[in-house]
Amino acid sequence: MDLEFLHTLVQPATTKIVLCSLDGLGGLPRPGTGKSELETARIPTLHALAGRSACGLLRHVGPGITPGSGPGHLGLFGYDPLRYPVGRGVLEALGIDFELQAGDVAARGNFCTVDARGHITDRRAGRISTEICVRLVERLRAIRLDGVELLIEPVKEHRFVLVLRGGHLSGRLSETDPQQLGVPPLPVRALAPEADRTAALVNAFVEAARPLLRDAAPANMLLLRGFDQRPHLPLFPATFGLRAAAIAAYPMYRGLARLVGMEVLKTGGTFAEEIDTLEEQWEHYDFFFLHYKDTDKAGEDGDFDAKVAALERFDALLPRVLALQPDVLAISGDHATPSILKGHGWQGVPALLASPYCGADPVSRFAERDCAGGSLGVIPAQDLMPLVMANALRFTKYGA
Amino acid sequence: MDLEFLHTLVQPATTKIVLCSLDGLGGLPRPGTGKSELETARIPTLHALAGRSACGLLRHVGPGITPGSGPGHLGLFGYDPLRYPVGRGVLEALGIDFELQAGDVAARGNFCTVDARGHITDRRAGRISTEICVRLVERLRAIRLDGVELLIEPVKEHRFVLVLRGGHLSGRLSETDPQQLGVPPLPVRALAPEADRTAALVNAFVEAARPLLRDAAPANMLLLRGFDQRPHLPLFPATFGLRAAAIAAYPMYRGLARLVGMEVLKTGGTFAEEIDTLEEQWEHYDFFFLHYKDTDKAGEDGDFDAKVAALERFDALLPRVLALQPDVLAISGDHATPSILKGHGWQGVPALLASPYCGADPVSRFAERDCAGGSLGVIPAQDLMPLVMANALRFTKYGA
Repeated sequence: MDLEFLHTLVQPATTKIVLCSLDGLGGLPRPGTGKSELETARIPTLHALAGRSACGLLRHVGPGITPGSGPGHLGLFGYDPLRYPVGRGVLEALGIDFELQAGDVAARGNFCTVDARGHITDRRAGRISTEICVRLVERLRAIRLDGVELLIEPVKEHRFVLVLRGGHLSGRLSETDPQQLGVPPLPVRALAPEADRTAALVNAFVEAARPLLRDAAPANMLLLRGFDQRPHLPLFPATFGLRAAAIAAYPMYRGLARLVGMEVLKTGGTFAEEIDTLEEQWEHYDFFFLHYKDTDKAGEDGDFDAKVAALERFDALLPRVLALQPDVLAISGDHATPSILKGHGWQGVPALLASPYCGADPVSRFAERDCAGGSLGVIPAQDLMPLVMANALRFTKYGA
Repeated sequence: MDLEFLHTLVQPATTKIVLCSLDGLGGLPRPGTGKSELETARIPTLHALAGRSACGLLRHVGPGITPGSGPGHLGLFGYDPLRYPVGRGVLEALGIDFELQAGDVAARGNFCTVDARGHITDRRAGRISTEICVRLVERLRAIRLDGVELLIEPVKEHRFVLVLRGGHLSGRLSETDPQQLGVPPLPVRALAPEADRTAALVNAFVEAARPLLRDAAPANMLLLRGFDQRPHLPLFPATFGLRAAAIAAYPMYRGLARLVGMEVLKTGGTFAEEIDTLEEQWEHYDFFFLHYKDTDKAGEDGDFDAKVAALERFDALLPRVLALQPDVLAISGDHATPSILKGHGWQGVPALLASPYCGADPVSRFAERDCAGGSLGVIPAQDLMPLVMANALRFTKYGA
C-alpha cells in the first residue's frame, strides 16, 4: 500500500513496538535430518511466542527473488523495495557508516589486476588483504579534481567506496566494470544529459588513478560500479508517526535505518549489548528496530550447526525483550540465508506478530513450514508494518 | 481485477446466488478461554456448510487497515475500496436512506458548543439528544441561498446531514471541523477551482446558521466535514450481468447497495423478515445481497456473549436460506468487529463459498483460525465476487 495513504490513517497512541530482524533468518532442511535450522534449534521461547502470535511467511521482493540486505530491510520497514531501489554504491557507503549527504554520488570500487595491454585478468586483484587496500586508498586520496570533493574509503579486501561531493552531480552513469576478463575497463558513460559532468569527473579520476596504481600489482587498476545517490525515501518516523530508534551493531543496518530517518542509537557489538541499549532507551521511543546478525553470518558460511547455535543464543536473550512488555513485538528477518545455499535465498522468511489483538492462528512453532500455515499468510514484507501499526492501535478506520 | 475486464467474461446462466454479509463477523479470542466468538458459538449449520465449502479469510482494504462499513461492503460487492472511495458525507446520507442524486454534495454535520469568543469547547455538543437535533435541524431549514437547494436531515444525537443540490457543485472542499478545541470553526476552502462556488455557498450557510443557533447552547454552532458527491461507480448489475437485489433492514446497507445499482427490496426489521423477503422474491432475481446486522452491534458494544448469541441466531435461521438451494452461497462479512476491541478491526474475516464446483478444502469449522488454512487463502475481499461468478458458471473462459 502507498505510504502516503498509510500516513493518512495514523492516530496518536502511547504503545511501544519492537521490530526484531534476525538477519538471514529463513533456512532450508539439511539433507539427512530433513529439518531446517529453525526446526533443529532448541528455541522454546520463540515457539511459545509463536503460539500466542499471528504467524506467516514474508517475501521481501517477489516470488523467486533473493533480496539483498538493503531491499530486505526496506521491506521490513514498510517500503516496497522495487519502488524504492537503493544503489549498490549507496549500500556500500552505508555499510561502512559513511554519512552520505544529499547529492553525493557513491560507487562501489574494486581493485583489479590488468595485464600489460591494460586488459583485466582478475576482477578482484586476488582478493588483496584489507591492509593493502587501505594503503592503495591512501594513494588514491592524492587525486584532486576541479569542482568536486573526492572521498575514498577502504571497505574490505579489494573493495572500496568512492564518493563524489559538490556541484550538480548525477548517479545516472554506466559502470567501468565490464564483468568479464580479457578486456579493458570501460569508460563511464552518462545515461542522462544531467550526468555528463559527473561522467567526465569519474573518467578523470580513473585516468588519474592509473599511474598511481601501475606498480601495485596484483591491484594495479580499479573498477567502479553501482553509481547512485541517496534515494528520496518518505521518512519512516513521519510516515508512521513514530519516534523510531534503531539498535544495530553492524554499520550496514545502522545505515539503512538512518536512510529512512530512524534515530540510530549508540550500542555495543553484541546482541546482549543491543538489548542493554533497548532497556536503557525504552522510555524515549515508540518504535525500536533491533538487529541480530549472527544467523546470517553462520548461513553465509554454510555452517548449519553455527546457525542453529545462533538461533539458540537469540532465543536465550529473547526473555529480556519480552520482559519490557512491548505492546507489539514483530520478529522476522530481511531474507533467508539457508546454510545449504551458503548465501542469501529467495525462500519465505518466518514472521511472528505478537499483540493482544493479533488474533488466533494454528501455528505453535516458529519455523518455516509451520509459519506457512499461519494467519498472516505468505505476504510481501512491506505489509508487515501496517499490521504492526494496526496492532499498536495506531491506525484509524478507513471510511466510515 | 478490473471490473471492465470481468464484465467481458460474463455469460448468461440461470443460477441463483446468495451473498450473505454478517456485519462485523470476524472476531478475536477472549482472554481466559482463548476462543473467538465464532469458536465459542454453537453454530452447527455454519460448521457443516464450511465442511462442504471452500473457505478463506477476506481482507477488505489492505493488511492492517480497518475498514468502515462502506469500503467493507464495496469490497464484498467486487469493488476495490481504495479505487472507489466514498466520502463520509455520502455514507452519512446513505445511512439515513437519503436518496442522493448525481451532483449533490453531502457533508456530515455535527452540532458543537462554542464559547463567547466562538471557540469550540465541545465538538459534539455534549451529545445532545436526537430530539434536540431534530428541532435544531428545523431551524436550519429556514436558511435560503440563491441558486442552490439545501436539504438538511437529522441523523442521531449531535449528527446531521447537509446536502446541497443544484447547479455545478463540487465536493472538493476542506472541512470546517478543526478537530481540536479552543479554536473557532474553519471556513471552508475550495480544494480545486471548480469548487469555488460550492465553498462560497457552504460558508454562506454556516454564517446564516450562526445566529439561528446562538441561543441553543450546548448546541450553539455546527461543524461540517466529509464533503463529497456520489461516486461514479460501475454498476453491479451491468458489470456482472445479474438481476441483483439487496435485502437489508438497516439504511446504511440499503444505501450502499443502491449506490452500486442493486434493487433494494422492502423488508422488515428482523433477519427472519429479511429471509421472508428472500423467499418471496426468490424467483425474481439472480443475486441476493442479504445483510445481518446483529453481529456488529454486539461487537461494537464489546459484548462477547451477545455476539456469540447473534451468531447462534443467524445459524438457527440459515437452514431457511439453504432450503432455497442457491447454486452459490457465499457467507462472510464487511470487516471484523472483535468484542475485545469494541469496534471495527483489521483482522481477516472468515468467508465460505458453497457450490457444486467450489472444490475440496480441509476446513470443517467456520472460524478464524480454521478459515486461515482454507483453499480460498487470505484474499482481498473484491476477489470473492469473481469466484462467486465462476462458481455460478456465469464467467466464460479467458483466452481460447
